[in-house]
Parts: sequence; structure tokens; C-alpha cells
Amino acid sequence: MGENIADFDELIQQVETIFVEKIPFNKLLGMHVESLDFESAKVKIEMREELIGNFIQKTLHGGVTSSVLDVIGGLTAFMTLLKKMEGASSEEKLERLAKFGTIDLRVDYLRPGRGKYFIAQGSVLRTGKKIAVTRMELHNDEKVLIAVGTGTYAVV
Amino acid sequence: MGENIADFDELIQQVETIFVEKIPFNKLLGMHVESLDFESAKVKIEMREELIGNFIQKTLHGGVTSSVLDVIGGLTAFMTLLKKMEGASSEEKLERLAKFGTIDLRVDYLRPGRGKYFIAQGSVLRTGKKIAVTRMELHNDEKVLIAVGTGTYAVV
Amino acid sequence: MGENIADFDELIQQVETIFVEKIPFNKLLGMHVESLDFESAKVKIEMREELIGNFIQKTLHGGVTSSVLDVIGGLTAFMTLLKKMEGASSEEKLERLAKFGTIDLRVDYLRPGRGKYFIAQGSVLRTGKKIAVTRMELHNDEKVLIAVGTGTYAVV
Amino acid sequence: MGENIADFDELIQQVETIFVEKIPFNKLLGMHVESLDFESAKVKIEMREELIGNFIQKTLHGGVTSSVLDVIGGLTAFMTLLKKMEGASSEEKLERLAKFGTIDLRVDYLRPGRGKYFIAQGSVLRTGKKIAVTRMELHNDEKVLIAVGTGTYAVV
Repeated sequence: MGENIADFDELIQQVETIFVEKIPFNKLLGMHVESLDFESAKVKIEMREELIGNFIQKTLHGGVTSSVLDVIGGLTAFMTLLKKMEGASSEEKLERLAKFGTIDLRVDYLRPGRGKYFIAQGSVLRTGKKIAVTRMELHNDEKVLIAVGTGTYAVV
Repeated sequence: MGENIADFDELIQQVETIFVEKIPFNKLLGMHVESLDFESAKVKIEMREELIGNFIQKTLHGGVTSSVLDVIGGLTAFMTLLKKMEGASSEEKLERLAKFGTIDLRVDYLRPGRGKYFIAQGSVLRTGKKIAVTRMELHNDEKVLIAVGTGTYAVV
Repeated sequence: MGENIADFDELIQQVETIFVEKIPFNKLLGMHVESLDFESAKVKIEMREELIGNFIQKTLHGGVTSSVLDVIGGLTAFMTLLKKMEGASSEEKLERLAKFGTIDLRVDYLRPGRGKYFIAQGSVLRTGKKIAVTRMELHNDEKVLIAVGTGTYAVV
Repeated sequence: MGENIADFDELIQQVETIFVEKIPFNKLLGMHVESLDFESAKVKIEMREELIGNFIQKTLHGGVTSSVLDVIGGLTAFMTLLKKMEGASSEEKLERLAKFGTIDLRVDYLRPGRGKYFIAQGSVLRTGKKIAVTRMELHNDEKVLIAVGTGTYAVV
């Protein structure tokens, strides 16, 4: 490993800051990084009035679900990329982040988005030189599976 | 036709009100109905700081794109459903709306989400007793195609 | 449980017969049921010249992959349906099979389809009155993950 | 333009030969190139007993549909790539073909696959240095839309 634990902690801190403070729409949704390392990531979002889609059932808007799944897929894929870039400068990492993007996304809405909060997590199915493929899941506070997704990301 | 033009205008007005005023997340995103009838629908969203995803490129967050495409697909599918329900009471229509929901969604991000505003439109590929399938497109103010999507909706 | 073990064995036998003998394209592909019960299913396909897509790399055609994933998703979803129909007559089950169909399918091609044989397996994410959603995986004989998929099936 | 009409005709002939003669699974399915140029492509497949999936309704197997849509998407994307490679040698073109592959595919089954024959056609939504995205449609002999798809292809 090219970096020691202090460097790793600093890196994670940087990713969290970028993620929550620098990406305006993540902030608008109220997303927080719940846990993060090179292999996995979890993001949390509290339910609130503004995120409702079905006003009769008072459930999460499908767009919030797709947004959170896209974000967790991207974050998981990006962590894999960072792992490969160990030893690279912050400038190089930021340059990669600027080019990083979602190619396509599939979301399956399994159950109504009811809950006090929601946890999204992702896992990498494949990571290559150009593309990463991830699977994502969204559970509510009672661990009910609300939605799943699959995402393809450009990592060059 | 079971309804005259005055009834139709009233119906469209109702759908617009529900869409923008009653669905909190649509309001948070700043979506507006640009045009609406039984066969087609257009939704507009103005670019603003809070909707940015890539803070280096200052482009639209992928979650905004997926949200708008999900909404326009659902709105297009729901209009087809309303057409079939001509003559039904407002209560019956509201009941159907309560059950209406996205089953799954695919989004393809074609170009960076740059623009002053974005227009989403949908078309129905198939509508059955249980399911409707729609295709959706998102263009920017210069008519550049930013993203496309396909959605499956439960219409029972 | 409404059926005893002898009935269950007979049912599994019937499903296998229908699957391999009665569905011509499954036969053309050379699919075989590897294991089958109400909760899970595995299908095997031997590599052979006729199934090649990339003639330079001698790998499985993407259409074979999507076919096998569609079939295993459908089989897994159908077994869940059969479980719910315990006690129903063979005629009723056959009637349901006639209406059963794929609504949509996503396939992610992760690695080149190289192998002596391939095993597909599925798991049900959600099963409702109208729709079942499944996730599917295809591994080669060395347990390398070749492709994954997600399918939505009409079960009414 | 680096190539004259005779060269173009020869190129089209080469693609057709590779497509039907060299790709075994295309031959097994009985696919034929109906029309082909740099901007568009059509592929035809005759209905026959061996391609049946639903033996009660006698309709096309979903795997045949997904196979044909994958193939037409790939062919359309590859023609765009060939256009960019005008002037390149046959060896260079063959090398690109060897690396060419499907990243992911979504298929929407809209109506039962009934018909004497089926025509698949594709259009390119976006073509970049690494990736091409295409939309595909399958119609029967009565021009009924049977299925649509979206595919992402690696073109490097």
C-alpha cells in the first residue's frame, strides 16, 4: 500500500467533504456518507416532507430513489478508481473526478418508499480501464428493500 | 367524447395543480408543466446552482435528469389512463393516481447537462390494463439531446 | 403445505419437461435444468460452435447470454407463482403459464463469454399479484461471473 | 471521402458476409441483412418453429427478440465506427471488430411476437471515442411494434 492510515483517513475525509459540501444537489437532498472505504460505501437520507412523491401515500418520490442510487453507484465506482490511483496527486484525482460520470442507470422500484430514513449501498460488479458496473440497493430504517439499481459509469 | 372542452381544460388545470403544488419533490426541483394533453406532455426545469452535480463542469446532477425523466414518463402514462377514464368521477381518478407508480426506469446519459433550462417530453409505447411503457427525452435550451429514458409504470 | 413430496417431484418433472421439450428455442440453445425448487433454479448450457458471437475471440454470442438470463429469470419467477398456486389443477397452472411473459429485461455484459459450459441462476427480488422482479447471474465453468441481469415479468 | 462507391459496396458486402457467414449464432437464428449503410441498418428474421418461446401462443421466444435487438444495435453502432475509420486498412477494421462488444442492453417486450417475419432496425443516439448508445425496434410483417431496446456498446 502506497499510503498509510493517516493518509487514508484524510482521503476519506476529502471525499466526504466533496460529496456533501461541493455537490449542491446532494446537499439539497440531504445525503450523508454513513460509511466509506475502498470496497464499499453507504449513504443515508432522512425522510422529510420535501422528498415526497406520492402525496396520498406520503412516500418517497421515485426521483429521490433514482438520485440516491445513482450517487451511491458512482461513489462506489469512484472509490475503486481511487484505490487504483494510490500515490497519485490530489490534482490527478480531482481531474479524474471531473471526467467521471454515469453512462446509464436502471432502477427497479420494489416497494413503496416508506420510512424514517433510507440507506443506500453499492457493490462493484466489474471495474475496467474505461467502465465500472455497480449494483445498488436502497433499504428503509426497518431494513425493508425499497429499490435496487444497476449503473454503468465512465471511469476514464 | 364524454367531456366537452370546458371539462378538458378543467382537467388539465387539475393535473397541473396536483403535479406542481401537491407533489413536494416536483416543487423542490422547480418543475413546470410546459404543455399537456391526452397524447403528450412537456415539463420544463430551469437550471440553478442547487441542481448541479459535477461542480467542476457545472452540469446538471444525474439525479435531476433521472427524476425529470421519471416524472415525464409517469405524466405521459397517466394522461393515457385519464383518457380511458373519461366520464369517471374525480374520486375515481384520484384513487387511480394513488395507486399509480413507476415499476422500473432506465436512463441513458448522452451528453453533459449544460443549459439554461431543460425540456423533458414523453411518448407512450404501449398501454395495457396493468402496465404502460414510455420513452422519454431531455433536451436543453439549444435543443441538444442530453438524456433519454424508458419507463414501465403500473396503471392499475 | 398442500402437496406432499411425491406431488412436488412430479411437479418439478413436469416443469422440466415443459421447459426443455415443449419450448423449441430452449431446445435449440441446448438448455438443461440443473436444479429446481420453489425458491431457486439453475440452468446449464454447454458451449458449442453454433453459439459463438465473436468469431475472433470464440466467445458466447450476447444473444445467448440474454436468452439464458431471460429464461432463468422467468423460471425463477414462475416457480414462485407455482408455490402460491399449490392445490390448483394442472389446467389452471397451464393457463397461467400461457399468460406468463417478460415485460422488460436488462443485461450487463461483464466479461467475455469464455468457458466449457455456463450456469445461470436467478433470485426473486419481489413478487406481487401482477409483477415479479428477478435478478440473474451467468457464471462459466470456472465460476467467473460473465453477465448479470434484471427482469420484470407479468405473472397474472 | 476516402473511399469511392465501389469501395463502399465492397465494404457493405464484407460486413454482410462477416455478419451472416462468420457469426455462427446469427446463422443459427437465420438473420439476414435487409439493408445497410453508414447511417442505418435493418435485419430480417423469418418465423419458424424452432424460434418459438410460448408454445401455447406460438410466439417468438423473448431470447430471439433480445438477440436480434442486440445484433441490430451492435451493427448500427459498428457502421458508425466504420464511417469514422474510412481509409483504414481491413486489418485495422477487423481488429476493431474483435474488441467491439455490448456493455449493456435493455429490452422492452411490448406485444406478443406473432408474425411471418420480423424486421429489426437501429439508430445511434450518441457515438463517442469509447462508447456508442443505440435505440432499436422490432416490428412484425404487419408493421406492429413488438419490442424496443436500448444498447450501450464499447467501440474502442
